Order: sequence, then C-alpha cells, then structure tokens
Amino acid sequence: MKYLEDLAVGERFMTQSAKVTEADLIAFAKRFDPQPMHMDPEAARKGPLGALSASGWHTVALVMGLIVEANTMDGGPWLGLGVDDLRWPSPVRPGDTIRAEVEIVSITPSQSKPTH
Amino acid sequence: MKYLEDLAVGERFMTQSAKVTEADLIAFAKRFDPQPMHMDPEAARKGPLGALSASGWHTVALVMGLIVEANTMDGGPWLGLGVDDLRWPSPVRPGDTIRAEVEIVSITPSQSKPTH
Repeated sequence: MKYLEDLAVGERFMTQSAKVTEADLIAFAKRFDPQPMHMDPEAARKGPLGALSASGWHTVALVMGLIVEANTMDGGPWLGLGVDDLRWPSPVRPGDTIRAEVEIVSITPSQSKPTH
Repeated sequence: MKYLEDLAVGERFMTQSAKVTEADLIAFAKRFDPQPMHMDPEAARKGPLGALSASGWHTVALVMGLIVEANTMDGGPWLGLGVDDLRWPSPVRPGDTIRAEVEIVSITPSQSKPTH
C-alpha cells in the first residue's frame, strides 16, 4: 500500500485500454440509464448524439476499472471523496477503445482521518 | 418532450427508490471497481469504510436510473455535459434503499445547439 509520502504532485500514469462493445453498452444502459440514445441504435440515430452512445456513467465506470487495475497504489484503495470537474466532451461509441491518463495535481492530508 | 421554456428554476421532484442488494453491489464492483471494500465482506470490514460498501460509481449509476425512470422530461433526454460537484458523504451498504431529490438550480441555453 502507498501512503501520502509515497506520492508526489506531477506523477502521472497511463492505464491499459478497454474496448466497449455494443452489447456491453446496451446492457449497462438497460440497467442504469435506460434512454433510447444509449439502448436503441435506430432511435439513437435520430437523437441528440446522432448514433448509439455509451451512458456517460458507463464511461466513468470503465475508467474507474482501468485505474484500479493499474494498481499504482500497490493494493491501497482508490477512495473518492467526490468529483469536482467531470466532463463528457465526446460520445463513446460501440467499438471505441478508451484509456485514461492519471495525474496527481495536488495532495491534501485528511483532516478527519490523518492516518489514512 | 420538454423544452427550456417548459422548465423553471426551483422546480423539484423526488424519484422512486431503489434497494441495493449485496449481490448487485459485488457484481458491479467486480466489473467496474474491483477493490476489496466493494467486493469482499471480510476484507471490507478491515478496510477504510468498515464494511462492504457500494462503489461510488454504482451509487451514481443507480441515481441516474431513478432519474430517467421518473420521466419528468416526457421522453426527452437527460443528457449531461458534465458534473461540477459530486460528493459521496456516506457509504451505501447492502440492503440500503436510495432515492434522489432533483432540483433545477439554473437554466443555461446551449451556445452551440440553441435548438436542443
């Protein structure tokens, strides 16, 4: 496990990549974001995104999986207090491959749990 | 479908509720957030959250589903450009029931797609 003193602002890493299939995308949408643009290729073509597109929550969940699998914390947890600036600039389509670049931009010791 | 002129700042609604089972929680985590605190009850007890807890991405995905199912847009899409202030103040545990309260706090016409 890594601790605060093992991390440095400016450290970056690139995750492996994940391919999103149409079946994955539709299954996620049916369970969590049942809108035509995420579930129905025909309706999606006429919708605001112009083609079948992943739920934005599917995209972030895939990114989370890639970050966890990279295991840069040596088994230590990735425990999020929250998110300040999440943007979906482009739709993720069936067949797309995504990966994530992670950078430590600041380090803030916990006030309530200084030993964590 | 609803348009900007059909919406007003201050409008609020409450979604239905969803119960999170341990099996759901573990299945989501195995696919998208494979960390012991989300997958393994025994390891979770010794981990930072003190008991098996849903991935925060599972929680937001469940909230998205509840919002879509409420269908307050009369079939119109819930299409997010991004999120500015997402917080996970408390863990969601197996057996918990969640629901969401939605409030329109501001309305901004699109610059690039004023007809959407």
